[in-house]
Amino acid sequence: MGDSDYSFSLTTFSPSGKLVQIEYALNAVAAGSTSLGIKATNGVVVATEKKVSSPLVDESMVKKIAEIDNHIGMVYSGMGPDSRVLVAKARKIAQKYMLTYGEPIPTNQLVREIASVMQEFTQSGGVRPFGVSLLIIGSDDKGPMLYQVDPSGSYWPWKACAIGKNMVNAKTFLEKRYNDDIELEDAIHTAILTLKEGFEGQISENNIEIGIVNDQKKFRVLTAAEILDYLGEVE
Amino acid sequence: MGDSDYSFSLTTFSPSGKLVQIEYALNAVAAGSTSLGIKATNGVVVATEKKVSSPLVDESMVKKIAEIDNHIGMVYSGMGPDSRVLVAKARKIAQKYMLTYGEPIPTNQLVREIASVMQEFTQSGGVRPFGVSLLIIGSDDKGPMLYQVDPSGSYWPWKACAIGKNMVNAKTFLEKRYNDDIELEDAIHTAILTLKEGFEGQISENNIEIGIVNDQKKFRVLTAAEILDYLGEVE
Amino acid sequence: MGDSDYSFSLTTFSPSGKLVQIEYALNAVAAGSTSLGIKATNGVVVATEKKVSSPLVDESMVKKIAEIDNHIGMVYSGMGPDSRVLVAKARKIAQKYMLTYGEPIPTNQLVREIASVMQEFTQSGGVRPFGVSLLIIGSDDKGPMLYQVDPSGSYWPWKACAIGKNMVNAKTFLEKRYNDDIELEDAIHTAILTLKEGFEGQISENNIEIGIVNDQKKFRVLTAAEILDYLGEVE
Amino acid sequence: MGDSDYSFSLTTFSPSGKLVQIEYALNAVAAGSTSLGIKATNGVVVATEKKVSSPLVDESMVKKIAEIDNHIGMVYSGMGPDSRVLVAKARKIAQKYMLTYGEPIPTNQLVREIASVMQEFTQSGGVRPFGVSLLIIGSDDKGPMLYQVDPSGSYWPWKACAIGKNMVNAKTFLEKRYNDDIELEDAIHTAILTLKEGFEGQISENNIEIGIVNDQKKFRVLTAAEILDYLGEVE
Amino acid sequence: MGDSDYSFSLTTFSPSGKLVQIEYALNAVAAGSTSLGIKATNGVVVATEKKVSSPLVDESMVKKIAEIDNHIGMVYSGMGPDSRVLVAKARKIAQKYMLTYGEPIPTNQLVREIASVMQEFTQSGGVRPFGVSLLIIGSDDKGPMLYQVDPSGSYWPWKACAIGKNMVNAKTFLEKRYNDDIELEDAIHTAILTLKEGFEGQISENNIEIGIVNDQKKFRVLTAAEILDYLGEVE
Amino acid sequence: MGDSDYSFSLTTFSPSGKLVQIEYALNAVAAGSTSLGIKATNGVVVATEKKVSSPLVDESMVKKIAEIDNHIGMVYSGMGPDSRVLVAKARKIAQKYMLTYGEPIPTNQLVREIASVMQEFTQSGGVRPFGVSLLIIGSDDKGPMLYQVDPSGSYWPWKACAIGKNMVNAKTFLEKRYNDDIELEDAIHTAILTLKEGFEGQISENNIEIGIVNDQKKFRVLTAAEILDYLGEVE
Amino acid sequence: MGDSDYSFSLTTFSPSGKLVQIEYALNAVAAGSTSLGIKATNGVVVATEKKVSSPLVDESMVKKIAEIDNHIGMVYSGMGPDSRVLVAKARKIAQKYMLTYGEPIPTNQLVREIASVMQEFTQSGGVRPFGVSLLIIGSDDKGPMLYQVDPSGSYWPWKACAIGKNMVNAKTFLEKRYNDDIELEDAIHTAILTLKEGFEGQISENNIEIGIVNDQKKFRVLTAAEILDYLGEVE
Repeated sequence: MGDSDYSFSLTTFSPSGKLVQIEYALNAVAAGSTSLGIKATNGVVVATEKKVSSPLVDESMVKKIAEIDNHIGMVYSGMGPDSRVLVAKARKIAQKYMLTYGEPIPTNQLVREIASVMQEFTQSGGVRPFGVSLLIIGSDDKGPMLYQVDPSGSYWPWKACAIGKNMVNAKTFLEKRYNDDIELEDAIHTAILTLKEGFEGQISENNIEIGIVNDQKKFRVLTAAEILDYLGEVE
Repeated sequence: MGDSDYSFSLTTFSPSGKLVQIEYALNAVAAGSTSLGIKATNGVVVATEKKVSSPLVDESMVKKIAEIDNHIGMVYSGMGPDSRVLVAKARKIAQKYMLTYGEPIPTNQLVREIASVMQEFTQSGGVRPFGVSLLIIGSDDKGPMLYQVDPSGSYWPWKACAIGKNMVNAKTFLEKRYNDDIELEDAIHTAILTLKEGFEGQISENNIEIGIVNDQKKFRVLTAAEILDYLGEVE
Repeated sequence: MGDSDYSFSLTTFSPSGKLVQIEYALNAVAAGSTSLGIKATNGVVVATEKKVSSPLVDESMVKKIAEIDNHIGMVYSGMGPDSRVLVAKARKIAQKYMLTYGEPIPTNQLVREIASVMQEFTQSGGVRPFGVSLLIIGSDDKGPMLYQVDPSGSYWPWKACAIGKNMVNAKTFLEKRYNDDIELEDAIHTAILTLKEGFEGQISENNIEIGIVNDQKKFRVLTAAEILDYLGEVE
Repeated sequence: MGDSDYSFSLTTFSPSGKLVQIEYALNAVAAGSTSLGIKATNGVVVATEKKVSSPLVDESMVKKIAEIDNHIGMVYSGMGPDSRVLVAKARKIAQKYMLTYGEPIPTNQLVREIASVMQEFTQSGGVRPFGVSLLIIGSDDKGPMLYQVDPSGSYWPWKACAIGKNMVNAKTFLEKRYNDDIELEDAIHTAILTLKEGFEGQISENNIEIGIVNDQKKFRVLTAAEILDYLGEVE
Repeated sequence: MGDSDYSFSLTTFSPSGKLVQIEYALNAVAAGSTSLGIKATNGVVVATEKKVSSPLVDESMVKKIAEIDNHIGMVYSGMGPDSRVLVAKARKIAQKYMLTYGEPIPTNQLVREIASVMQEFTQSGGVRPFGVSLLIIGSDDKGPMLYQVDPSGSYWPWKACAIGKNMVNAKTFLEKRYNDDIELEDAIHTAILTLKEGFEGQISENNIEIGIVNDQKKFRVLTAAEILDYLGEVE
Repeated sequence: MGDSDYSFSLTTFSPSGKLVQIEYALNAVAAGSTSLGIKATNGVVVATEKKVSSPLVDESMVKKIAEIDNHIGMVYSGMGPDSRVLVAKARKIAQKYMLTYGEPIPTNQLVREIASVMQEFTQSGGVRPFGVSLLIIGSDDKGPMLYQVDPSGSYWPWKACAIGKNMVNAKTFLEKRYNDDIELEDAIHTAILTLKEGFEGQISENNIEIGIVNDQKKFRVLTAAEILDYLGEVE
Repeated sequence: MGDSDYSFSLTTFSPSGKLVQIEYALNAVAAGSTSLGIKATNGVVVATEKKVSSPLVDESMVKKIAEIDNHIGMVYSGMGPDSRVLVAKARKIAQKYMLTYGEPIPTNQLVREIASVMQEFTQSGGVRPFGVSLLIIGSDDKGPMLYQVDPSGSYWPWKACAIGKNMVNAKTFLEKRYNDDIELEDAIHTAILTLKEGFEGQISENNIEIGIVNDQKKFRVLTAAEILDYLGEVE
């Protein structure tokens, strides 16, 4: 009898000390389309594939990157519906902070709180963990930030990272390309090149999505036209 | 021991990261009668088979397409009783939006909220997912819209799509026929032709149902007489 | 391992997308005594067998057909105690409508609401589906109506239908006999003839029950004397 | 795998559409000491064995027949502690009716409400059905009444019936002896004779109990002296 | 598969109609030290063994017989901690009766209410039956009373009875010795003689306990000195 | 299939009438470090081993004996964290008594209440029994007292007793040494000698702990210096 | 069937008296990165490895040591997300104490309360134990303190200790090096040397973290520059 017998009811420990439902949730993440992020000196970028199952899906309307606050954005790999729950919670956390303290929530504070939400779903009865990992980017007094949050509620600050199906190759690619002095424009180029590696089919402005926080600490999602320009630049 | 052992109690993860109850709910959808939708430049149409088990069923009184608001309609494949729960919730969401903001709810906002309801039923203890997929059509400032929502709470914007028993063939048919400049009248014709493909028995104004949102952003279900006319036109 | 392993706890999905507890509840219905209904142009009739296990049961006091409102009645096949719960709920629904809107509840509105009650018992934890199918008859501005509601919460409008043990034969019989111009008196005759087919033992005014909605939109249960007259007429 | 696998947790359906916990509860009834009732033209009687395990039990103080209201009484076969719960509930139902309507509760109304209580225990999570069948007798404007209520919440109006261990033989005996013109005195004699058939050991005024509703619509339990007289009369 | 498979979760019915958890609770009682009671014409007595596991236990301080009210007392066989819960409940029931009606609770009323408490623990989810049987003695307008209450909530009025490990022999002994004219003093002698039969080791004033209700309707526990005197008398 | 199959969910009865979770909890106690108590004529003492896993543990700060009130103290064998829950509850019980009655709680009253808490955890759903046995000492108008309370909620008054790993040998040792006229000083010596028997390694003032209630009805824990003196005296 | 069968649902006892979920949680701790602490005469230090899975993780931003109050700090081995829950609770406990008593919480008081929280998660239904062990350091009137708290809620005062992957070797190393007169500066050196033993790869100011409470009873985390200095000193 192996570890898998221990996961069917609550999120309980297996003999080796693992929470098996979390391991399985990570497999849901690993099966999701690739997302990645790169922190630059003057901003931070996330990029993601938009996997569509048919040419009749209106790709231009599919959105995977979400704005949380003026200065914070988020993308996910894994189960889309679960990520929307977390987007909604993250926005409420940001609004509540603004109402309480009169200033924008620091990125790491938001990350900590959303990670706590995810942890709760691993320790309460009758619920399952979230089936997503998140990349959260933001910028505040401490500069640009890039965080990964996992179904366990674990989070890490990254210089550059990738999650989802092509995660391993993308990380290797990023390790080779990344340097600490990278600027945002260059980071966007690198993000596109990383996605392009291992992309199934032809990359285009409609099947990828890019979000940035710029040196004005402003988060926004790039338009299709902007992505098209960047795609031209990296050819 | 395969994935199926993991589904009997809550909606928990299988080792491969799937939520098996959702997979099974999708099988309920795949066994349901076919529904499809087509987005035109000046409107959007949904059409569906009405499977009746006996000639004594009063086909003229069977309704599968429901109005959610003046400008939004909905059809389903899968379990009818589950779809009625969602119709009731969708209507409340639309009314609440109108009361709060004094204007009709945008289609994508309604889709997002009804999808959240469906997601909740995949993460709470003691409930099962909904056994339906929905096609939601509407029109607002952003133009006509066609969305599919799945038992997982996933949703996609489509140009044209099909769900239910004949889904695969219908999608192939639509991929061949669809073009981005299609107008509503032509879309209605295409919808009928798609249903006609693979229809068991004789298609008639009584065993199919058609709903449209027209260029006035008005949703309505076509009368039997109107369907009869369209059936004549596509012969 | 077949479908049956999935039904023992909650009403969850089997791999093929079925809710097995509902399938089993339908078997409870199929084992119940036969009920049937016929919609006429000027009214609607339901009739049912009263299965009694002993000559000492006081047949004249057994009641299977219940009045819901002045213009609506109901019969069931399956588990009697479950049907009484639904009768009580249906009466409350009708009274509440009258209190709210100052007019009698339309038949299809009542059907929709009682069907929602039955659906709820297929999606909540810790309860089982109802073990009955209902035939609901009524008459309002839209004319006479005959509906069947199943344990799943599914409902269908019928011209004529049958549920319970002898359902298949009765339906075949009705398909042959039914025509769209049938009048109430003739429908009552047909109902009795249908029951008589496949009746175990001697049919009498004491072991069948008949309810009608007449052209005055008034529901009532026929007296034993009236049934005796009709039995004479169909000899 | 048979039906029995489906009963261990909630009262769920077996594949054949049975609620197995109810079947088992009926077995508890069938193992209980025999009770019976006979409806006469001018009253109604119930009689029951008092099974005592030892000569040291104070038989004169064992009570199985309970008064519910002035005009209604009740006896049970099966689990005594469960029956007491139902006696207490029945008394509350009767008192509440008197408080609300200012007149005694009709027998069939009380039966319907106590049967609803028993049905609830077959459809809610975390409880088991009651392990008793009841015989309820009463008299009101509609005359004397005799009802049986089962663990399922099913109830039947009887002319004469028996429940418990010797049920089958007692019913056969009653079918032979019963006629529609029977008067109360004769019914009491018949009740005693029926119990006497198949009685283990010597019948006496201490090991049987008899309750009647007389032609004044008054329920009472016969005294030992009265029973002794009747026993003399039937010799 | 035998009965035992049905008992592990709730108190549900086995195929033969037994509540297995109750059967097992009775086994806990049958393993407990012996208690017995005898009803005399002018009072009633209970007596019990105090099983101590070591000579270092301070026998003089072990109490198994509890006063419930001035006129009512109680002893148990089975699990001591469970009996204390029932003692506490019984005292509250008696106090509440006094507060409500201004007079002492009749013995049979108290017995009925404490038996209802025990029944509840056999029909609710998430709890187990009590692992004790009780002997309750009291005296009121109806004279002295002796009742046994079982884990099922069943109770019986006795002239003389015994529960616990040596129950079978003690009952046989009592059947031989008991007569209806026995007086309290003689009943106390008989109680001691019954305990002495089958007593393991030397009986003494420290390893048995005796409670009586005298002809003044006063319950009290005998002192060690009193027991010593009685022991001398029965030599 | 043995007893052990019955313990995995709630604290239910095994076929032989045992509550298996309680048996297992007693095994947790039996694996804990030894504690013992001796009641003297003018006081009472408890002593316990402090098992430390490493020389780096600061033995001087490990506390196993807790003051409950001025006149009551407590030690445990088994799971330390569970005992702390009970210490906290015991202190509240003592404070509440003082607030209500204006005088210190009698020892046996406190014991009864803490034993009730422990019993509750053996009869409610979703919790496990406490994994500790307690020795509670105190002194009040009735003189010095020594009680043992077990996971079942059972308690016994002792003259001298021992719990935990070395329980059997310690009890034998105490039975030989104990006499009813023992005074507190001598009892402390005997307690140390009993611990010394079977002590693994060198006994010292740092690896044992001693609590006393003196003839002033005052509970206190001996200082390391005091223990050192006693250790010298028993050499 | 071994111990492991008992752990899948609640935290129940295995036959040998173990709470298996707690054993498994300790395995989660034993798989975590090493943490250690040393109590000096004039302060106390904790140190921990920061395991990072990739050179792209921004090590400088990873924080494992948390301030609880001015004078108390905490580090963990095991599951990071669980530790954050405990950090949040610990801060609330400290604030509440300050609000209630107007002075900083004593270290052992805080330890006791956080250990109680951890115990609760081992005795309630529907939750799992925490997957972390904690080292808590602080200084108050009783001097510097170092405590370990385990998933069971057990806690111990240490002079020096280690938890996590390299726990056994680290403890052996500490036992050899530790003496009771150690001063804080020396303790920091020893802590670094202990971590260095068995460190995988090159130790640096970025992959270890050090927290101290100094002789001013002030807790703080050392800066990277400070750690770099200490690393130079221990070369």
